[in-house]
Amino acid sequence: MLEELKKEVYEANMQLPKLDLVTFTWGNVSGIDRKKGLFVIKPSGVDYEKLTPEDMVVVNLKGEVVEGQLNPSSDTPTHTVLYNAFPEIGGIVHTHSPWAVSFAAANMDISPLSTTHADTFYGEIPVSDPLTKEEIETDYEGNTGKVIIRTFKERNIDPQAVPAVLVSQHGPFAWGATPAKAVYNAKVLEVAAQINYHALTLTHANINVPQYLLDKHYYRKHGAKAYYGQDNAESKNHAIRK
Amino acid sequence: MLEELKKEVYEANMQLPKLDLVTFTWGNVSGIDRKKGLFVIKPSGVDYEKLTPEDMVVVNLKGEVVEGQLNPSSDTPTHTVLYNAFPEIGGIVHTHSPWAVSFAAANMDISPLSTTHADTFYGEIPVSDPLTKEEIETDYEGNTGKVIIRTFKERNIDPQAVPAVLVSQHGPFAWGATPAKAVYNAKVLEVAAQINYHALTLTHANINVPQYLLDKHYYRKHGAKAYYGQDNAESKNHAIRK
Amino acid sequence: MLEELKKEVYEANMQLPKLDLVTFTWGNVSGIDRKKGLFVIKPSGVDYEKLTPEDMVVVNLKGEVVEGQLNPSSDTPTHTVLYNAFPEIGGIVHTHSPWAVSFAAANMDISPLSTTHADTFYGEIPVSDPLTKEEIETDYEGNTGKVIIRTFKERNIDPQAVPAVLVSQHGPFAWGATPAKAVYNAKVLEVAAQINYHALTLTHANINVPQYLLDKHYYRKHGAKAYYGQDNAESKNHAIRK
Amino acid sequence: MLEELKKEVYEANMQLPKLDLVTFTWGNVSGIDRKKGLFVIKPSGVDYEKLTPEDMVVVNLKGEVVEGQLNPSSDTPTHTVLYNAFPEIGGIVHTHSPWAVSFAAANMDISPLSTTHADTFYGEIPVSDPLTKEEIETDYEGNTGKVIIRTFKERNIDPQAVPAVLVSQHGPFAWGATPAKAVYNAKVLEVAAQINYHALTLTHANINVPQYLLDKHYYRKHGAKAYYGQDNAESKNHAIRK
Repeated sequence: MLEELKKEVYEANMQLPKLDLVTFTWGNVSGIDRKKGLFVIKPSGVDYEKLTPEDMVVVNLKGEVVEGQLNPSSDTPTHTVLYNAFPEIGGIVHTHSPWAVSFAAANMDISPLSTTHADTFYGEIPVSDPLTKEEIETDYEGNTGKVIIRTFKERNIDPQAVPAVLVSQHGPFAWGATPAKAVYNAKVLEVAAQINYHALTLTHANINVPQYLLDKHYYRKHGAKAYYGQDNAESKNHAIRK
Repeated sequence: MLEELKKEVYEANMQLPKLDLVTFTWGNVSGIDRKKGLFVIKPSGVDYEKLTPEDMVVVNLKGEVVEGQLNPSSDTPTHTVLYNAFPEIGGIVHTHSPWAVSFAAANMDISPLSTTHADTFYGEIPVSDPLTKEEIETDYEGNTGKVIIRTFKERNIDPQAVPAVLVSQHGPFAWGATPAKAVYNAKVLEVAAQINYHALTLTHANINVPQYLLDKHYYRKHGAKAYYGQDNAESKNHAIRK
Repeated sequence: MLEELKKEVYEANMQLPKLDLVTFTWGNVSGIDRKKGLFVIKPSGVDYEKLTPEDMVVVNLKGEVVEGQLNPSSDTPTHTVLYNAFPEIGGIVHTHSPWAVSFAAANMDISPLSTTHADTFYGEIPVSDPLTKEEIETDYEGNTGKVIIRTFKERNIDPQAVPAVLVSQHGPFAWGATPAKAVYNAKVLEVAAQINYHALTLTHANINVPQYLLDKHYYRKHGAKAYYGQDNAESKNHAIRK
Repeated sequence: MLEELKKEVYEANMQLPKLDLVTFTWGNVSGIDRKKGLFVIKPSGVDYEKLTPEDMVVVNLKGEVVEGQLNPSSDTPTHTVLYNAFPEIGGIVHTHSPWAVSFAAANMDISPLSTTHADTFYGEIPVSDPLTKEEIETDYEGNTGKVIIRTFKERNIDPQAVPAVLVSQHGPFAWGATPAKAVYNAKVLEVAAQINYHALTLTHANINVPQYLLDKHYYRKHGAKAYYGQDNAESKNHAIRK
């Protein structure tokens, strides 16, 4: 069942140690087949060195395991809530990458301070509201998903334009059109956090990028007029050929 | 004698360079056979690249070498004291990992600021009382163990719930049910210290995790209701199967 | 066409991941054949692992693609402007290396605080003026080049003596006599930024190197009296042979 | 000539990239044959990847090249001065390792803040006096050696007990009984600088280790009563055998 997707999710999971985004087993990637309404996720607490595509667990959009011998990631209810709330996304990743977790621990947004950020995130990456005692004690992982959604709604942030969040005092979730793109976004988030830490400890000046620089860099890589790379709509037209 | 345990202790020692926890020979792991009342420990000052399982030294709970050509770790008396005082533990590790040593040098506890910490440590990782001049000049390594125990008693910290300490101006000791788990705890300590350094230099806000978040994350992975991974008591029941 | 130069530019590009100067595809190197008035540049958004010498794109000094199936780097207009303005340079590199970007984000020059800096850069590495809204919205990459030139003119900095710049809120460009030397300069810039971050957060004292130390170190490696290494003018004479 | 020493010096040089102490060619190790009054040093500006034992250059204690096709390190006069002034040492190393250079740039000593430091350095590692304009303009590298000696004399520091220095605004020199021990000391210096940076930015408390802890750790590893490792005078006696 879903063998291609299992392989894709497996490979996205294996990118996490390669990109220095995980310690031990502290990360998980999932990917969804929207037509079937099923997603595939890493099993809970399995070493990356021992992981195989066959270990991936298939879950439906109620959060029920449909196939798989192993227990799915303990964060499966968060993934379930996000897939239901954000119908455009195809992959989700959670890590404890240390720069992002440092901002989550400090309860600080990651502000757009450079084009490295603006190329991927169209505005600040928010830290979520803290979960209440009640939200933590009952259906913790499901409520983590709900608080993410609430944060994006309250602050009027588009989850496609800002495909990541810091869960307060916990760590990052990122998402994207595919599992691989979710992992890409998680790495950009980590690099943006690293840059912001150093910039914010160098100066107290107002160094947020202006809106027009944010627009320029974000739309170089996204949307109908994107021209970065080989595959975007305007890429071929952008290069002037003699 | 104790060939299986020697191999286990050897392999736990070899994890230290792999996990970036040691420079040169500045670390040692031991493991105990409780039935026999003997523990196995790395020899003193031997390069990890040259280490073999046969080099491990067997020591009794009086701290006397029972088998082994090489001298045991100079920290053997600390291990001896800890094994006698903490009857539940099966392995001990000492390193000079740089983030943990930075907090030890600063004489600062590592406070629980994120779930990365709370998943493993049920509260702050204490920095020990400083050793007095007398404690340093006579039976230094034994007294290091005694000060660790005194610190845990004075502050009413359960060494099973908080399986690590920073010896003041020196560095970390960690322990666990097995040598491998002790090393795991030493790595979590290092990551927690890294995160705390960055969070504490970003903000002076009160960012300790609330008790209910500490409870939630600690007990997700420990005790009768733990549900993380494949092997905990509740792991199988936690996943909802269709 | 330009097969030797393509290989040279390819190899300079491949140094970027080796020297830890790029994440993903966020960097590009070009090199110029001054006689033919053509330069060779990395294609846009291609993974370093998949890059081949044949993928390099040939561009003329009007910025028009002369040869190559792929789209050239989206930063090609910046390279074009710099090659036209700085006739002495033979290679250009752009990266998002994190220490340099941190200073770009903070809008701070990298001051000469140690001989590591002075060996390569004869004075501060300037952060450019910010681009205006108009400069960003029309011909952004070309205007990036123009703002670099304007910054060097306004501040009376010689681009041969200081072969790098931080584009404000964006990141570094570096250049040199060859593509390989441009990459070398980009790495020195990154190391200088790393050292400066730590020195500036340790002390608020005036720690710029004095002019005579800057002179000494810069001219040890540059100009008619350079004596560092095996190939400089004075290298052979400097060693006293018995 | 001196084939064994050349090999020893070559291997000590090759430790520098392995221990993350050099970027490019920014480091050099030498070793001396005291009976012959000759030392062997890395050639100037040669890549570590291309270096061979035969490339090593033989120099006498007047600083004259006695054998070798290549030019010796441009820092040869510093090594010459140090070998003449410190008759006990057998090897010298210079690097631009970034944590040590950060303290050199900040003109700050590396204070003894932890046992990691005290195990190797019996007190603070001094930053040298700045060289004067005259000292820099004439015989710069020789004067660098003289300023190091002057700093140790003025501050009454024993170069055997504190086998390293930070040359002001420049970087570290370290030394030892052999080239390998000099490199070891250079690595400990780098780790001590890293720990100190973090401890000093965490707290403004007085965190220097007390004299009795400095004594304990230094003399665990040095002198007639050293008991660390397998080879020190007291190592065998220290372990209690049943």
